[in-house]
Amino acid sequence: MSNTPKTPGAPDASVGRVELKGNVIIGQAGGPTCVINQSLVGAIRELVRSKEINDIYGALHGIDGMLEEDFIDLRAETPRSLERIARTPSSALGSTRTKPTTEDCLKLFEICKKREVRYLFYIGGDDTAKASGIVADAAAGADYDMRVFHIPKTIDNDLLENDHCPGYGSAARFVALASMGDQLDNRSLKGVKVNVIMGRRAGFLTAASVLAQQRSDDGPHLIYVPERPFSLDKFLRDVTQVHDELGRCVVAVAEGIQERIQENIVAEGHEPIQTSEETDSFGHRQLSGTGELGDYLAAFIKNHLGPVVEERTGKKLRIRADTFGYLQRCFPEVVSKVDADEALRVGREAARVAVTDEHLNGTITIRRTGTAKTYAVSYVWKPLEAVAAGHRRMPDEYINAEGNGITEAFRDYALPLVGRFPRLGWLKGKPI
Amino acid sequence: MSNTPKTPGAPDASVGRVELKGNVIIGQAGGPTCVINQSLVGAIRELVRSKEINDIYGALHGIDGMLEEDFIDLRAETPRSLERIARTPSSALGSTRTKPTTEDCLKLFEICKKREVRYLFYIGGDDTAKASGIVADAAAGADYDMRVFHIPKTIDNDLLENDHCPGYGSAARFVALASMGDQLDNRSLKGVKVNVIMGRRAGFLTAASVLAQQRSDDGPHLIYVPERPFSLDKFLRDVTQVHDELGRCVVAVAEGIQERIQENIVAEGHEPIQTSEETDSFGHRQLSGTGELGDYLAAFIKNHLGPVVEERTGKKLRIRADTFGYLQRCFPEVVSKVDADEALRVGREAARVAVTDEHLNGTITIRRTGTAKTYAVSYVWKPLEAVAAGHRRMPDEYINAEGNGITEAFRDYALPLVGRFPRLGWLKGKPI
Repeated sequence: MSNTPKTPGAPDASVGRVELKGNVIIGQAGGPTCVINQSLVGAIRELVRSKEINDIYGALHGIDGMLEEDFIDLRAETPRSLERIARTPSSALGSTRTKPTTEDCLKLFEICKKREVRYLFYIGGDDTAKASGIVADAAAGADYDMRVFHIPKTIDNDLLENDHCPGYGSAARFVALASMGDQLDNRSLKGVKVNVIMGRRAGFLTAASVLAQQRSDDGPHLIYVPERPFSLDKFLRDVTQVHDELGRCVVAVAEGIQERIQENIVAEGHEPIQTSEETDSFGHRQLSGTGELGDYLAAFIKNHLGPVVEERTGKKLRIRADTFGYLQRCFPEVVSKVDADEALRVGREAARVAVTDEHLNGTITIRRTGTAKTYAVSYVWKPLEAVAAGHRRMPDEYINAEGNGITEAFRDYALPLVGRFPRLGWLKGKPI
Repeated sequence: MSNTPKTPGAPDASVGRVELKGNVIIGQAGGPTCVINQSLVGAIRELVRSKEINDIYGALHGIDGMLEEDFIDLRAETPRSLERIARTPSSALGSTRTKPTTEDCLKLFEICKKREVRYLFYIGGDDTAKASGIVADAAAGADYDMRVFHIPKTIDNDLLENDHCPGYGSAARFVALASMGDQLDNRSLKGVKVNVIMGRRAGFLTAASVLAQQRSDDGPHLIYVPERPFSLDKFLRDVTQVHDELGRCVVAVAEGIQERIQENIVAEGHEPIQTSEETDSFGHRQLSGTGELGDYLAAFIKNHLGPVVEERTGKKLRIRADTFGYLQRCFPEVVSKVDADEALRVGREAARVAVTDEHLNGTITIRRTGTAKTYAVSYVWKPLEAVAAGHRRMPDEYINAEGNGITEAFRDYALPLVGRFPRLGWLKGKPI
């Protein structure tokens, strides 16, 4: 599994490589995950074994700490302490959402030159790969010999070139367990329940809400992902149909459908959503950390379906919304072992390839090599641009034709990543 | 621990008791918990051993199923199946929020007489104790010999006469772990974070957010419970002070403070909260299943503190809110062993006391007998009225003088109930 084959399209600069002695900077960026410290520890463990590496600087809060020379000595950590840090959720070095400017990058090289830093490892998502690319380009422009590596992590699972991303398996496990408990709750006290799950552009995490299902009528019964258009009228018809059939309905929606709702809201004549205007330095509008989408959808169902159902059954329809929010990222004790192992491994691989292999810059991607029954992966070098170039979305075959559910193909894909679920008990329900 | 001593104040009707043969109805009501089926299974295991018990009817969805004679045969379950059901979250029989009317109760007795039902066990919170009391009174009025027992459960932990309630320990464990992960997240990406936690009248569950803290500056840094008045002006001063000190601030608020905010919102000149008008049949206004309180507090901080901090540090203040919502009730795999064991035991005790002891009606309460180091409890019979008479709130000594934090006395009280937490790892942070 550890082979990093010579990849077609590797940069020419890799030819005739020489050994490069110096110091290292490692940083973490973007939203934290349960296993992001596995990657940090994997890289440190590999680096301390290498003759070419002198000091290992941990940059506090990513590029912010690099620019302020806010470094800590990662060689000072004991193996036992590293073991525990690896299992601790959320970025141990602190994180950042800052996108470095060209000026920032020039400043960083001055710091690197001054400190003889020859290796930069930056753990994060596609934004972090982009930031790494900016630093690498600036280094190349300044003719400074330096190896810049991105180490992947994202609960969104939307990095190009990766079968799946470190961090996803554990977040998916949390979403699956939360959905399992929530749909048991909804069986007990019936009604319509809307759960908003993280995912701006990709529906992988929302789709994970089905993974712990054990009975044919287990929720969520409807799943909406950002890969498909979203019509409020269709949504209302879907919810009504499920509720008519089962007397209850659990819905999972990706936070990213908020933008898809806006597309046809005027044509369908519905109220606009009150949204936050806040954006980060990459121009992304805030979606998480607010209940507005869930509350909007619950109010929409209440306004349209509430009176109808009340008339039919004589009972008030119970409609609730939850936004799973930040709990999806760093919840302790709900970690996928596969995810933790792979996160450790990409960190190790990045350090190994940077120090001993032929590539100057790049990222380590995860490729699936086994079948559904014999899950296996390999770790493959790719250039930074390949990952920074865009975002991966759910393949069509993972989404049903109606655009309101998930297919078996997705289950086959995702189940090996999340670990096993507790087997529930059910009353036989023999009538008396 | 199994002694149920003759309690002073037991009803006179208990004197001269005779053996009572017949059938049993068991039902579950109110919000489900992770361990409510432990109580169900505990009662069933005890009942099947008794010569006096014939059929054991499981009522689907509590009083609703009782009135519609929607019963299943609980003797049909195998020991192995019961073992698994006990470990499955959420009411296996289904739940209800219906409060029976006097007419409902009279109808229920007709059903009980017709079916020779002599024992009714109703698992739930104070509303369920109230409903049990109505049924018991109607039985007494109709001179029908019947033993009505309430079996306690509530994640709110607010039942009178109980040191703590089955269901609380597991929900508290979820809140503690969620808060642990969330405050690690907030360490990594700093800002102000508001978490809304369940609890209409009592702050026990919100207070549990401190239980997994390991470092002196771990969040939540501010905790607001419904037992104290809530001033938005004071809240803003508190958040500003913590943020000035730590550069971040995690706040835990009980959903019940929504009503405390309204008390002085006009006097302080702030915007009212847009609230749901929905109420259940007990007249409780909907607080859960919406993000409105969290969004209101986040917007309040954003409007008042955002510009100030931005000016001071040059950085945009990151303000987010999460509402932990229904995940607190039924999340699988985050269960306190103590809680599970005690929930099983109150079910067993209720069945044992009803069949063999001197009390006609009542509830089983949990009394703490050990010290902080040697945790132990006993299970004590009490009359239904004692539990149905009101709600327990947090004792004054669990809340700090300022009304924005939790004391050591609360930790001593709650820690034995929730189990151990994972020990986190920390970078030494040796400067380089």
